[in-house]
Amino acid sequence: MDPSLSDADAVRAANTAFYRAFEACDIETMAALWSSVAQVTCIHPGWQPAVGRDAVMSSWLTIFQNTTAVQFTLRNAQIFVAGDAAWVLVLEELSLTQSDGQQIHAALQATNVFVRELDGWKVAHHHAGPAGVAQPYGGSRVLH
Amino acid sequence: MDPSLSDADAVRAANTAFYRAFEACDIETMAALWSSVAQVTCIHPGWQPAVGRDAVMSSWLTIFQNTTAVQFTLRNAQIFVAGDAAWVLVLEELSLTQSDGQQIHAALQATNVFVRELDGWKVAHHHAGPAGVAQPYGGSRVLH
Repeated sequence: MDPSLSDADAVRAANTAFYRAFEACDIETMAALWSSVAQVTCIHPGWQPAVGRDAVMSSWLTIFQNTTAVQFTLRNAQIFVAGDAAWVLVLEELSLTQSDGQQIHAALQATNVFVRELDGWKVAHHHAGPAGVAQPYGGSRVLH
Repeated sequence: MDPSLSDADAVRAANTAFYRAFEACDIETMAALWSSVAQVTCIHPGWQPAVGRDAVMSSWLTIFQNTTAVQFTLRNAQIFVAGDAAWVLVLEELSLTQSDGQQIHAALQATNVFVRELDGWKVAHHHAGPAGVAQPYGGSRVLH
């Protein structure tokens, strides 16, 4: 933890590290980035929520074991800090090759929640879902 | 704010009040439920994020003006408290009639972030997206 970083910069760095661990399919780094104090939660696209550290890490292991290569382009990352919590809104442009050879390209809108702990900002919750594909309410206010 | 409520109960009550304000299309109650201290954010399904109180309240006004009737059935609400922040994961079963007569039925997975303020827990972020319809990664781990 670099004490010269602002909270927003530190959260931004933690958020970037999260996606780098995902790209590396590195379960140990991923585990270290998540809180081991808070009860963590994770909603992968189309999955039911994973609740608790064991379930969340198991979900990452399943994804990593089914992934040959994955790359994110992150757009419009915005950081919001409120005391010892923070959240990041980011558009994930995802290119992923599954172990079965299937190629996936998707745009996902994510909310990532972080909590401040003694050794820095840790991921407490990740929620990613499809961006700009569903419009169950709101009339004329389309994605633009 | 009832001091006898646990944090989790108080957050649950704030979360329920949020959906009741949505069902009532009551912009004043909705505005009072959101933080006026934190920078608030909101991701409606398929919308780009609304950032800041003016943009978030404007998004609700747009929705309310385009809605004749709306009802939620909330399932599997789970509350997570970490210090002065909290988040709620909840499956929203939505039935909505738009002003143009269109009927909408959707299942949405939501993440709602709350912050503790002097007058109670306030909404700081809402993110709702389609539940169980997209599966861009994860191999065999389907919604079950």
